[in-house]
Amino acid sequence: MSEKSSYITKPKGYLATGIRCGMKKDGKPDLAFVVSERNASAAGMYTKNAVQGHSLRRTRRIIDQYGHCRGIMINTVSANACIGIQGDTDAERIAEEAAAAIHVRPEEILTCSTGVIGQRLDVEKIIHGIANFETTLSRSEESAHQAMHAMMTTDTVPKESSETIDLNGTPVTISGMAKGSGMIHPDLATMIAVFTTDADIEPGFLDALLHGAVERTFNRVSVDGDTSVCDTVVIMANGMSGQKIVAGTDSQRLFEKAFRKIAEDLARMIAADGEGATKLIEVIVEGAPTDQDALLIVQSICRSPLCKTAMFGQDANWGRIITAAGYSGANFDPNKTDIFFGPLQVCKNGCAMIFDESEAKGILSRDQILIKLELHSGNSSDRMWTCDFSYDYVKINGSYRS
Amino acid sequence: MSEKSSYITKPKGYLATGIRCGMKKDGKPDLAFVVSERNASAAGMYTKNAVQGHSLRRTRRIIDQYGHCRGIMINTVSANACIGIQGDTDAERIAEEAAAAIHVRPEEILTCSTGVIGQRLDVEKIIHGIANFETTLSRSEESAHQAMHAMMTTDTVPKESSETIDLNGTPVTISGMAKGSGMIHPDLATMIAVFTTDADIEPGFLDALLHGAVERTFNRVSVDGDTSVCDTVVIMANGMSGQKIVAGTDSQRLFEKAFRKIAEDLARMIAADGEGATKLIEVIVEGAPTDQDALLIVQSICRSPLCKTAMFGQDANWGRIITAAGYSGANFDPNKTDIFFGPLQVCKNGCAMIFDESEAKGILSRDQILIKLELHSGNSSDRMWTCDFSYDYVKINGSYRS
Repeated sequence: MSEKSSYITKPKGYLATGIRCGMKKDGKPDLAFVVSERNASAAGMYTKNAVQGHSLRRTRRIIDQYGHCRGIMINTVSANACIGIQGDTDAERIAEEAAAAIHVRPEEILTCSTGVIGQRLDVEKIIHGIANFETTLSRSEESAHQAMHAMMTTDTVPKESSETIDLNGTPVTISGMAKGSGMIHPDLATMIAVFTTDADIEPGFLDALLHGAVERTFNRVSVDGDTSVCDTVVIMANGMSGQKIVAGTDSQRLFEKAFRKIAEDLARMIAADGEGATKLIEVIVEGAPTDQDALLIVQSICRSPLCKTAMFGQDANWGRIITAAGYSGANFDPNKTDIFFGPLQVCKNGCAMIFDESEAKGILSRDQILIKLELHSGNSSDRMWTCDFSYDYVKINGSYRS
Repeated sequence: MSEKSSYITKPKGYLATGIRCGMKKDGKPDLAFVVSERNASAAGMYTKNAVQGHSLRRTRRIIDQYGHCRGIMINTVSANACIGIQGDTDAERIAEEAAAAIHVRPEEILTCSTGVIGQRLDVEKIIHGIANFETTLSRSEESAHQAMHAMMTTDTVPKESSETIDLNGTPVTISGMAKGSGMIHPDLATMIAVFTTDADIEPGFLDALLHGAVERTFNRVSVDGDTSVCDTVVIMANGMSGQKIVAGTDSQRLFEKAFRKIAEDLARMIAADGEGATKLIEVIVEGAPTDQDALLIVQSICRSPLCKTAMFGQDANWGRIITAAGYSGANFDPNKTDIFFGPLQVCKNGCAMIFDESEAKGILSRDQILIKLELHSGNSSDRMWTCDFSYDYVKINGSYRS
């Protein structure tokens, strides 16, 4: 899914770096910085959790107030959440340092934090790291990948995607990078995603485009049903391609398609890299009475530990699938429901079918599994991605802080 | 919690047996039967899943229609769900045989099934087992425990509780037994519970008493957030103590208290015996604005894989607790929230506190853990039981069918 040439500085006029501040115990990069050479339009979407981190609240306030920014700084290890007034002060302090390093104002720097809740930012270490920004920031692919690695927590693979479209003979590029593998569920997830584009888009329209791209991509990923206090998706648009995206024109349609493609790439990568995951699971519901019914069912299946452990065990236990649909709260008729694993039908009209267990085992042993429910009760559909539930999920999360 | 002398035939006039039909691969008892010597009032509560098993639907129909029964038969291995019309025929057929064995009418026998969905009842084996009912049914404690063992699936311990109250100088006894350790969540759970009493209670009032006892006990247990298609709680009241329970009198208050005590015992036992569980977790929310807010928060925490794996890892990661509260949908102020593990406060006004990690580890290493949230936002409270999430949960559920 990730193209070889996907990286966050691919659109014109972006620089990045990933710095080792010494916060991660393994000595890996732990502070990412993405900068636009010019003032960029900015839009963001945030967790709907009632508890929200201090860095996140600062970013939200700046985007709401100004609609523009010059850079985004992302630290790992501490979520900068549930710290009290000190958390706000800390976020402001590191933003001031980062702004000074690239000679802009603090309110032009967005802040994202991810890590342990209730643990203060290590402000000294971060400031020490920021001292390296000016000399290491670059538009190179290597620097961009360094930034990606600096965002990672329990992620095992980097998650980057890029698309280039042609507008009036001029290439316009959009890139995204994302972190997230646990505490993942719609609205949003323990997930931070940064998009950059050299398209010219005014802030209000950029916000609408962002919501459109996220709704059926990032908001359709579940790893464990938990949503965190730091989830943030931000996009910067600096206009340096010279091409403006205008509502209701081909430019909008082309840009939206590319944006959604990248968001879907990243969403699938997040599900596939779910903590302890051995496989990517895509759940599709068709023939639902309403959109809401379709959504309730895909969410319920993607959240069910019993469905997810069965997939880990390569067990064609469709009874757990129809059970999860049954308690989802959706309106549908179980007696009309068909269920498929990949091409193999295992349930017809809500009843058991005789199927070849070895064929089922073969399908479920793959690293991507499609589960489809056909409800025959209407015309609405939805789909969602999740992963299986393995021993390693428990191992990773049994001792995250220590 | 379980008294040594707790067993389902302890109230007057009940017989039980647990038979080996050869459905369980390990040769353990797999068919339970509980009989009242006299016609008994009956009341039931059932899963709210849209998918409901054939045996369950038959029981519901009989209780709705007659309000009385003579016996309850429970089989394991097959859930008798999602089978089509054959599932109804199979349930009726085994009820006829059981009724003939004790010389009553088929509509006096309730049926409960638990096991794999979409797998037909092994009618031949069950009928073969029923042939042993008449010679093995007895009021002995041993027979009652046999019945308990015959209900068990992934349960590791029997779950039985009894209470005796004094009404007008006459002892009145109520007993309960339950199975259930996975696919457990309120409304109801993959849970079957049978209660017997020798009190005299008319069916409508018995139904009200059952709802009262279940609401804050069985409906406050979560193992994995999944609710099954077979969950059933049934009570029989045969009146053989000669004592009538009358609404609005002391007899009601005494009986309710005893009934709730037994239901709570069994609910706690189910949570403690959750699949793969190493500890029982009790979550209490106090100071919520409304009952609904309190319920949403205890449910959200008890369902969170991240909270449950942290408890398995003995990790005082209260950030995951406040996060789960935050996405529960409850109305509360995170900045007023205090969190405690047992007596140890770890969060005050939504902010991190400095606490002794080794003291926390000591508390979390016990086999019963109390997590308390004080919201300081009102007068409503609730509590719920769950267990931790371990490697063994994944192991048990990765290969349940095979």
